Amino acid sequence: METIQSNGYNIYFEDSLTQLVKFIEQGKYSRSFVLTDENTSVHCLPLLQQYLGEDGNYDLIEINAGEESKNIDFCVGVWKMLIDFGADRKALMINLGGGVITDLGGFVASTYKRGIDFVQIPTTLLSQVDASVGGKTGVDLDSIKNIIGTFTQPKAVFMAAEFFKTLPDRQILSGLAEMLKHGLICDAAYWDKLKTSDLSLPSLELVHRSVEIKNEVVTEDPHEHGIRKALNFGHTIGHAVETYSMLHDSDPLTHGEAIAVGMVCEAWLSNKKAGLSDAELAEIVEVFGKLYPKHKIADDSYPALFTLMQKDKKNQGNKINCTLLTRIGQFSIDNICTEDELCDSLRYYTTL
Amino acid sequence: METIQSNGYNIYFEDSLTQLVKFIEQGKYSRSFVLTDENTSVHCLPLLQQYLGEDGNYDLIEINAGEESKNIDFCVGVWKMLIDFGADRKALMINLGGGVITDLGGFVASTYKRGIDFVQIPTTLLSQVDASVGGKTGVDLDSIKNIIGTFTQPKAVFMAAEFFKTLPDRQILSGLAEMLKHGLICDAAYWDKLKTSDLSLPSLELVHRSVEIKNEVVTEDPHEHGIRKALNFGHTIGHAVETYSMLHDSDPLTHGEAIAVGMVCEAWLSNKKAGLSDAELAEIVEVFGKLYPKHKIADDSYPALFTLMQKDKKNQGNKINCTLLTRIGQFSIDNICTEDELCDSLRYYTTL
Ligand SMILES: NC(=O)c1ccc[n+]([C@@H]2O[C@H](COP(=O)([O-])OP(=O)(O)OC[C@H]3O[C@@H](n4cnc5c(N)ncnc54)[C@H](O)[C@@H]3O)[C@@H](O)[C@H]2O)c1
Ligand SMILES: NC(=O)c1ccc[n+]([C@@H]2O[C@H](COP(=O)([O-])OP(=O)(O)OC[C@H]3O[C@@H](n4cnc5c(N)ncnc54)[C@H](O)[C@@H]3O)[C@@H](O)[C@H]2O)c1
Ligand SMILES: [Zn+2]
Ligand SMILES: [Zn+2]
Repeated sequence: METIQSNGYNIYFEDSLTQLVKFIEQGKYSRSFVLTDENTSVHCLPLLQQYLGEDGNYDLIEINAGEESKNIDFCVGVWKMLIDFGADRKALMINLGGGVITDLGGFVASTYKRGIDFVQIPTTLLSQVDASVGGKTGVDLDSIKNIIGTFTQPKAVFMAAEFFKTLPDRQILSGLAEMLKHGLICDAAYWDKLKTSDLSLPSLELVHRSVEIKNEVVTEDPHEHGIRKALNFGHTIGHAVETYSMLHDSDPLTHGEAIAVGMVCEAWLSNKKAGLSDAELAEIVEVFGKLYPKHKIADDSYPALFTLMQKDKKNQGNKINCTLLTRIGQFSIDNICTEDELCDSLRYYTTL
Repeated sequence: METIQSNGYNIYFEDSLTQLVKFIEQGKYSRSFVLTDENTSVHCLPLLQQYLGEDGNYDLIEINAGEESKNIDFCVGVWKMLIDFGADRKALMINLGGGVITDLGGFVASTYKRGIDFVQIPTTLLSQVDASVGGKTGVDLDSIKNIIGTFTQPKAVFMAAEFFKTLPDRQILSGLAEMLKHGLICDAAYWDKLKTSDLSLPSLELVHRSVEIKNEVVTEDPHEHGIRKALNFGHTIGHAVETYSMLHDSDPLTHGEAIAVGMVCEAWLSNKKAGLSDAELAEIVEVFGKLYPKHKIADDSYPALFTLMQKDKKNQGNKINCTLLTRIGQFSIDNICTEDELCDSLRYYTTL
């Protein structure tokens, strides 16, 4: 599998941790710091240690797992550890974890002494196929996601499918939704391949194709003006469903599970408004139906869901801008949808 | 006075607040936010309001005055106000104040929603001649200065000498030290001009020349590898004196007052080691002697001062790297000084 060149850095697939060792040697860093969370310390660090050695070659900084850690207080904690360890401008930060670790670690590194080098080792499917490309770092504030952050590219990204072995099934499903999205918006052949693959433990080849697609989209439109909106497919409704679930459900949906709901609804809208055929809609519904458990959307939640869609930063005022499919493998941006249409699509999902 | 072009942005001198109004109009910003501290709200905001209008055209965010505010807690406060005001990605932040406001405001803006536009209106002499150029933003953590920050250029800088009228004398003297430094390292004619000017209220022409000099140095060496070290003249000893004073004096030295002490000491070292003539040393001593009150340096503080010099990020290990003068208007970097030499220079200052 070829190394992918993103915005000034490489994303390694083949033998990637050997590449990491080379990268560190060539970088002449004063010191390496590995950032983990409680889970990746247990499940992912041992593999890394086989390459870096167990002692003396780096300092370890561990934070609590989960989105609740993705805030400024934890940044201050990590900054202070870097200070205590005497990290200077030639230090390297190695972020080993899911999107929380790579987003927070990237932000901390991009602001420590006005920026030190960092590399990403994403250990969840979602962070490999999504967070690894695009240069977004960030943390939450006042429960607003990613409101504080920078655009800073890592110096390299290292992928390994070994990490998936310890991932809970729902984490696999979460990343898978973004992969299915990549197929739906840009590459019908990839979508077909996903349909027929064993998706309980996705292969690195599949990850590679997803990263390629996201990389192409992001490189063409680094500042989210045009075609990057393609990546929003499923997200207008999905984000609202995700936030609503977080506020109301005892066991909330993951990001990908919510996006899966959103993609079914927005596929229906695509069929109504953008030319997606009945057969293609049926196919999309079938694929998601097999993979994802049905989510209950109560009738009386529609107004709240619509309000959430309006608040989404990608929309202005009353009009809700959706990215839809003209057919499988092809998207169309800036489709204005009304409240009625959006609620009808939720209703459609409910009847399935 | 000509507008100075720095790294992708303009620094306006002539009619600068009229230029600001134009800048805002052309920028099509969704909203402007003015950041002030208690003092600049009183002394500087009224002038700005004459141009922006008093009501409705911007939201005001005020923080406490002083270096104690330059930390992450105050950043969180400002970020939350931006959120509460509904600031979006097309918002503009206008930092109206001294270096604390321009450094903190720049950092907050460069990280809010991964970066919104900001402009600087520096209101102290120090912030006009120094902080306005170079793209450094930042805040302190654990009393380590500027340890968290970014390199982000403002979209424009607007200078006005009117602000100096309300500045305390010691704040004038603080900025003046950097101006004298600019003359000493790069421009003998400017140094001569400063010597014969009324420096109780420096003219915008003088500020302009200082900004030009700093801009040339920084543009040639954006990442502090070579000639940017010229700007360190007086700072090796000056920083140590500043920190020591902060820790021990009831009324600590300002940055510039400490740098003035440092420049006298380092002029003596320049005479001993780098070719500065006896006459030039005498001239430098006389100019600083007239402008700055004598600072007491106790004999038993020398070891502590030397330790502080060693900790300075610009040095490695035992060797202390100084920028010295070969003559007035010409510098030489990377002069290695021993503990004895440095202490002798402090002793020299004390005997004056
Ligand atoms: N920067 C971007 O462009 C981008 C893109 C998408 C998502 N994100 C961010 O990513 C975050 C979500 O990503 P995520 O789902 O990876 O979150 P996460 O980092 O919270 O990981 C999910 C859970 O899996 C655990 N885990 C990680 N790797 C494991 C492994 N190999 N084995 C067992 N457990 C493991 C983690 O400890 C955590 O409990 C969100 O904060 C989101 O904002 C960022
Ligand atoms: N970014 C850079 O390149 C750079 C360069 C030099 C200094 N700095 C930073 O700048 C800071 C020091 O700058 P400073 O001395 O301007 O600090 P400051 O902002 O604290 O200002 C000094 C005092 O003057 C008050 N003040 C400001 N303008 C006034 C006016 N017009 N009239 C009356 N009072 C006024 C302030 O409220 C404050 O009390 C430090 O934090 C330093 O790290 C940054
Ligand atoms: Zn997503
Ligand atoms: Zn200085």
